[in-house]
Amino acid sequence: MIPLSLNTVTVKEKWGLADCIEGCARHGIPGISPWRDVLHAMGVDGAARKIRDAGLTVTGLCRGGMFPAPDAAGRAAAIEDNRRAIEEAHKLGAQCLVMVCGGLPAGSKDLPGARAMVRDGLSAILAEARAAGVTLALEPLHPMTCADRSVLSTLGQALDLCEALGEGVGVAVDVYHVWWDPDLARQMRRAEGRIAAFHACDWLVPTTDLVFDRGMPGDGVIDIAAIRRMAEAAGYNGFTEVELLSRRWWAEEPDHVLRVMKERHAAIS
Amino acid sequence: MIPLSLNTVTVKEKWGLADCIEGCARHGIPGISPWRDVLHAMGVDGAARKIRDAGLTVTGLCRGGMFPAPDAAGRAAAIEDNRRAIEEAHKLGAQCLVMVCGGLPAGSKDLPGARAMVRDGLSAILAEARAAGVTLALEPLHPMTCADRSVLSTLGQALDLCEALGEGVGVAVDVYHVWWDPDLARQMRRAEGRIAAFHACDWLVPTTDLVFDRGMPGDGVIDIAAIRRMAEAAGYNGFTEVELLSRRWWAEEPDHVLRVMKERHAAIS
Repeated sequence: MIPLSLNTVTVKEKWGLADCIEGCARHGIPGISPWRDVLHAMGVDGAARKIRDAGLTVTGLCRGGMFPAPDAAGRAAAIEDNRRAIEEAHKLGAQCLVMVCGGLPAGSKDLPGARAMVRDGLSAILAEARAAGVTLALEPLHPMTCADRSVLSTLGQALDLCEALGEGVGVAVDVYHVWWDPDLARQMRRAEGRIAAFHACDWLVPTTDLVFDRGMPGDGVIDIAAIRRMAEAAGYNGFTEVELLSRRWWAEEPDHVLRVMKERHAAIS
Repeated sequence: MIPLSLNTVTVKEKWGLADCIEGCARHGIPGISPWRDVLHAMGVDGAARKIRDAGLTVTGLCRGGMFPAPDAAGRAAAIEDNRRAIEEAHKLGAQCLVMVCGGLPAGSKDLPGARAMVRDGLSAILAEARAAGVTLALEPLHPMTCADRSVLSTLGQALDLCEALGEGVGVAVDVYHVWWDPDLARQMRRAEGRIAAFHACDWLVPTTDLVFDRGMPGDGVIDIAAIRRMAEAAGYNGFTEVELLSRRWWAEEPDHVLRVMKERHAAIS
């Protein structure tokens, strides 16, 4: 049985982090992956203690990254924020810090330039991440987010960065972001030893919003089990984390969301 | 000066094909690319005559493709429809038939299977396209359309298909669909001699709809001029066709749309 992890954004409208920790314990969900907003709201040290006491594995901290900025001050501020994120991930004992690398700086059309800012930002924090024992999990995001969230768009591109940066850098594979990729099977093989996190949700038909209309696993067209098998063939045997940004599911009662999530996960595990 | 072409979908809410032909003549736009719905509404022979009389170049016919279907009868019907499209493109003297290859069949999660249906569909019509002298222009569509419009998602994938199919098959490069691709520069070099059409519109921030929120060139973040230069470096010296699926621009007066389109095109040419 593949272990399941709750990404806190999945129930973010109704539950804070303490609720999520209790909810995971109540539903027998062994993993949790907090976003930093709910982590800060609870307090990092208290959250770390409570998560430890509940016996949960922290499958990731969401999120570092967001490196590109129009000016040097903005880029430096992003790097500072990533340093804090590394420290938080270390305190939580998180399996990785998920990196959503950032889009184009405001007003820019310079995609190669933004990619260079991402690479430079990662380079700037790498020594600290290594020292803290925090794996930086580069998450390629769906190309529809390229302008405003992530100029890192494909698994192949993420693996190129991994190779350039070396030790301490891996990838977060979210089926929502990579399922369409004609080069996926080959890149998943190439990802051997590099997969630090595996995220699941589903692509709905139709999809009515570019950010907040992700589907519960099983409600869409992604062959999640097939992609999970690719991850396992590449040596990944960790958690499947359900990360659902969905106005529809945010409106539901969180205990119901966790029940459905468990059922769906069991069906494809 | 790069020659400009009007894709009729850009003004589809207010103008039929006859209006588009007259509009191009009135605004000094030398190219036109009709969708088949307006073509059928006008009648193919009459449209071909009127376009010829107006001295317009038909830069493409939109569209063939849509091969995947749940059953053999559906796939055969798609192939039949593509045969008619080839005949229409031939009658118009179109520079290509733009192929929007199709998404997953209803109810399917089998992406490799859908891709095979696309390849098989193209193979089935290839002899007829060659005999008619109609280039099949494979258009990779943005990955956000993978489920319901095109399992052909990247230029690299389209070029792989070109190579597998051989003579008579090229690519349609639409900046909206390919701008995000980290592998774009390399694939554009590889596309040498294969580019049959070049389409332009822009990626808006934010984008509020996955289909109908394309931006007028200049209103978004795509470095259209840079991608056009890549096309020219790969030997393409043809038209830039403005294809805008946009609720915002559909609501405007079409003569205004054509004026803006011309200005924007001039600014990046």
